[in-house]
Amino acid sequence: MNDGEFVKEIASKDEAFSQWYIDVVKKADLADYTMVKGCMVIKPYGYALWENMQQCLDKKIKATGHKNAYFPLFIPESLLTKEAEHVEGFAPEVAWVTHGGEQKLEERLAVRPTSEAIIGSLYSKWVHSWRDLPILINQWANIVRWEKVTRPFLRTTEFLWQEGHTAHKNQQEAEEETLKILLDVYKEYIEKDLAIPVLVGKKSSNEKFAGAVHTYTLEALMGDGKILQAGTSHNLGQNFAKAFDIRFLDENQEEQYAWTTSWGTSTRLVGGIIMVHGDERGLKMPPKVAPVQVVIIPILFDKTKQEVLKKARELETTLSEKFRVELDDRDAYTPGWKFNEWEMKGVPVRLEIGPRDMANSQVVAVRRDKGNKTTIKETELISTLEKWMEDIQNNLYMSAKVKLEENIRFAGQYSEFKEIMEEKLGFVKAYWCGSPKCEDQIKKDTKATIRCLAMEENDEKGKCIYCGKESSSLVYFGRAY
Amino acid sequence: MNDGEFVKEIASKDEAFSQWYIDVVKKADLADYTMVKGCMVIKPYGYALWENMQQCLDKKIKATGHKNAYFPLFIPESLLTKEAEHVEGFAPEVAWVTHGGEQKLEERLAVRPTSEAIIGSLYSKWVHSWRDLPILINQWANIVRWEKVTRPFLRTTEFLWQEGHTAHKNQQEAEEETLKILLDVYKEYIEKDLAIPVLVGKKSSNEKFAGAVHTYTLEALMGDGKILQAGTSHNLGQNFAKAFDIRFLDENQEEQYAWTTSWGTSTRLVGGIIMVHGDERGLKMPPKVAPVQVVIIPILFDKTKQEVLKKARELETTLSEKFRVELDDRDAYTPGWKFNEWEMKGVPVRLEIGPRDMANSQVVAVRRDKGNKTTIKETELISTLEKWMEDIQNNLYMSAKVKLEENIRFAGQYSEFKEIMEEKLGFVKAYWCGSPKCEDQIKKDTKATIRCLAMEENDEKGKCIYCGKESSSLVYFGRAY
Repeated sequence: MNDGEFVKEIASKDEAFSQWYIDVVKKADLADYTMVKGCMVIKPYGYALWENMQQCLDKKIKATGHKNAYFPLFIPESLLTKEAEHVEGFAPEVAWVTHGGEQKLEERLAVRPTSEAIIGSLYSKWVHSWRDLPILINQWANIVRWEKVTRPFLRTTEFLWQEGHTAHKNQQEAEEETLKILLDVYKEYIEKDLAIPVLVGKKSSNEKFAGAVHTYTLEALMGDGKILQAGTSHNLGQNFAKAFDIRFLDENQEEQYAWTTSWGTSTRLVGGIIMVHGDERGLKMPPKVAPVQVVIIPILFDKTKQEVLKKARELETTLSEKFRVELDDRDAYTPGWKFNEWEMKGVPVRLEIGPRDMANSQVVAVRRDKGNKTTIKETELISTLEKWMEDIQNNLYMSAKVKLEENIRFAGQYSEFKEIMEEKLGFVKAYWCGSPKCEDQIKKDTKATIRCLAMEENDEKGKCIYCGKESSSLVYFGRAY
Repeated sequence: MNDGEFVKEIASKDEAFSQWYIDVVKKADLADYTMVKGCMVIKPYGYALWENMQQCLDKKIKATGHKNAYFPLFIPESLLTKEAEHVEGFAPEVAWVTHGGEQKLEERLAVRPTSEAIIGSLYSKWVHSWRDLPILINQWANIVRWEKVTRPFLRTTEFLWQEGHTAHKNQQEAEEETLKILLDVYKEYIEKDLAIPVLVGKKSSNEKFAGAVHTYTLEALMGDGKILQAGTSHNLGQNFAKAFDIRFLDENQEEQYAWTTSWGTSTRLVGGIIMVHGDERGLKMPPKVAPVQVVIIPILFDKTKQEVLKKARELETTLSEKFRVELDDRDAYTPGWKFNEWEMKGVPVRLEIGPRDMANSQVVAVRRDKGNKTTIKETELISTLEKWMEDIQNNLYMSAKVKLEENIRFAGQYSEFKEIMEEKLGFVKAYWCGSPKCEDQIKKDTKATIRCLAMEENDEKGKCIYCGKESSSLVYFGRAY
C-alpha cells in the first residue's frame, strides 16, 4: 500500500476549503452522515474530543458556582409563544411533536430549540423570595432546529450543547453574570483549552438573541477567512421573567420581577477546532482536548517483532499515567500509512520505536505542529512530553492569534470595505452609525454582517462606513458561518 | 422554627410507601414536576447524583473496551418498522414529529424510544469485513416513551440512559458480550457503586426485549416488596443485522450477517437508590455516588461565631481534597433544621463544630446509617472518614442484601404463592413449565410476573406452580415497578 495514498484523498485546503472540511471530518473519523435529514452521528473519535471539551468547560462552569440540572426536551406550544420576540425568532426552526403513540396530542410540543421557555416556567415555581436568588443552573442537552442547509458540526438539525440559565435579584447582578460567563468562562475555555483566539463584544440588535436585551458574543476567524460565532451570553433583562412570571419579594418585602441571563456553546466548536488548526495533512488537536495526545507506532521487523512490541506496550503503560496514549499495533497497515492516519487525526505527538531505538534506549518523536523528527532519551521522555504538550498548546494558539491579528483590517471607505470582503475576508473594523438599515445594505452588498461591537473605549469619531454619518461606534464585520 | 417540622411533612414509609417516595423526591430536592405531561425536571441535587452514577458506570464501560458516540434523536418511520417484533413492541409508545418549522414532513420521525434501528442502519454502512468487528459503542442519551402512568425517575415520558450497541463476527462473541455487560459491568456497578443487591437471570420470552433472541436482566427488591428491573442486556442474534443489513466478509471471504447486542440502564436507578436505602427520615446516599459525602454544620453563638465559621471553612478546605464536602453556613436556619434537611438528603456523614469542639480540637460526627453522635479528634478526622465511607457503603449493601435474602421465598403450591403475593410480596421462587399461558394466568391472578429465570444449575425436577406439569426450570416471580 502506498504510504501517501491516505492523505491524497482529501481536497486542498487552500483551493477548496469547504470540501477539505468535509473530507477531514470523514477521514479523521469524527462524524458521519445519517439517513435522517440534517442529522449527523458523532463517531467515537469525535465524541471523545467532545467529552474532553465538555470536561474542560464543565469544570469552569462549576468553579463559578453553577450547578447542572436537566429539563424536559418538549416545550408545549402555549409556553413557547409567551415571549413574543422569542417565538418569532424560533418558530420557523421548530420540530413539532403532534402524536404520542396512536393518539393525536391536544397541544403540539416543540422539540426544544433552546430552553428559556421551559426553564422560565419552572423558575417561576421555584423563586419566591430574594433568598431564593440567584439561581445558577447549567444544562448539557441536545437541541433541534430545523435547518435548511446543514454541515457537520457547524449547522445540524440536532446538535449538542450546554445552556446556562440564571436568575438574579437586580439588573447589575445579571449583567455581571453575563460578562463573567463571557470573559471568565467562555473566553478562557475557547482560548486556553481549544487554542482559538476570539474577539468579544456586544451584538448589534439585528444579531442579538430573540428576546434578549443584549447579547455578548465570541467570534473566531476560520482558516478560510470566514467568521464563526463561538459562543454567546445573553442579558435577558426582565423580558423572560415577565413572560414567564418569575417574581420574588425583595429585602423590603416588595414584589419584583427577576433579572435573567442565558448562555450557550455547542458542538459547533468542534468545527472551529478543525477550521482554525487544520492543515493540508488534516487535523491538529490542541493537547488539552485531544482524544489521543501521544500515539506509539512500533517499527516491526520479523526478527525483533516480539521484543519491540513488548517495549511499545511498556511505554504505553508508563505514559498512560500522564497522557492519553494509544498504541497502534495493527498488523494490516504499514508504519507510513499509520503516520498519515494519525496526522490526519491530529494527534499532537507521534512516537516511533524500532529495534535500533531500543538498543539506544531512545524513541523517535514527531510533533504534529512541526513535523520534524527528534530522538528523545527514554529517561527524558515524560518530562519532554510534558513540556511539548504545553508548547504545542501555546504554539497552536499563537499561530492562530497571529493570523487573527493579520486579518483585522480597518476600512475607512466602503470601496475599501468591499475590496477586503471580495479578496481577503477576515474581520473589517469600521465605524457604524448604529442604523440597522446600513447594516442590512452592507449585508446585501457583501454578505458581511456585524459580528460584534468593539469593546474598547473609543474617544474619536469617524464616519459610518455605509452612510457617512458621524459616529464613535467601531464594529467588526465579517462573513459568518 | 420547630426542628422536627421539616421531616414530619413526609408520609410514613411503612404505611404509604408510594406517597413516601414522592415526598422524598420532592423534599430531598431531587426532581420536580413540569407542565409537560409525564416529564420531570431533574434538579441540581438529583442531577449531581446522576452525574456520579454516570461516572462510575462510564468508567466500567470504557474499561471493557467500549467507546462513546452519539446518534440522532430522530428515527424515520420506515427505519423503525424494519424489524417486525421491535416496531410492534415500541410503536404504541412513540412520540412522532410530523412538522419541521412550517412544513409537514414527508415521513414521520420517531423520537427515539431506543436506538437499535438508527444505529443498525449505520453499522450497516460501517461494517464490511471481519476486521471491522467487533464494534463496541455506548451512547448516553435522552429517550422518549409515551407512558400513560408516570412516576418521577421510575417511569417518565422522557428519561436519561446509556445504551450500548455492539456487533460481532459470531454468536459466541455476542453471547460473551451480553454476559460481560450483565455480570462485569452492570452487576458490579449496581451492587458495588449503588449498594443495591440484585438477582440476575434470563427473561422469559413474554418479558424479553422486542426483537431480541434473549434478554438478561438484573432485578432488585424495593422497600415495599415490589421489584425494580435495574438493567437489561440483550443478545439480538442476527435479527437486527438481517433487518438493517449488517453484513461482512469473514476470514474465508464468505458473506455473513453480524451478531449484535444491546444493553441499557437509566435514571430509573435513582428511584432504586431511594427505594432500597431510604427510611422514615428520607434518603440514604451510598457514599460512592453521594453528591455530598460530608456536610459541615457550624454551631454558632454570637460571641464565637467568627472563629467557629473560620474553623468550619478550614475544615471544608482540608476535607475537600478527599471528599465531596458542603459547608452549610446559612444564617436563616437553625442547626436542628439543617440536621433534618441533610438527613432527608441522605448525606452519609454530618459533622458539627461549635466552640467547645474547637477548644478540644475535635468535631462531633453523625453517620446517616447509624444516627448516634461520636466525637472525632481532628487529627484522626480524615482517616476516620475514609474508613466510614467504606463502612457505610458496605453497610447499606449488606442491609439490603439481608432484606433481599429474607424476601426470596420458595412456593410449591399456588395457594402459598398467592398468599405470599398478598401478604409479603418480595420474590417467589417456583417451578414453571415454560408456558406463556401459565405466566399470563399468574399475572392475572396476582399481578406477579416472571422477573427472571434462575441462573443456577438445577438437577431436580418440580411441578409448575400453576399447571402442575413437571419441569426443571426454577424462576423468580415478583410484582414489578
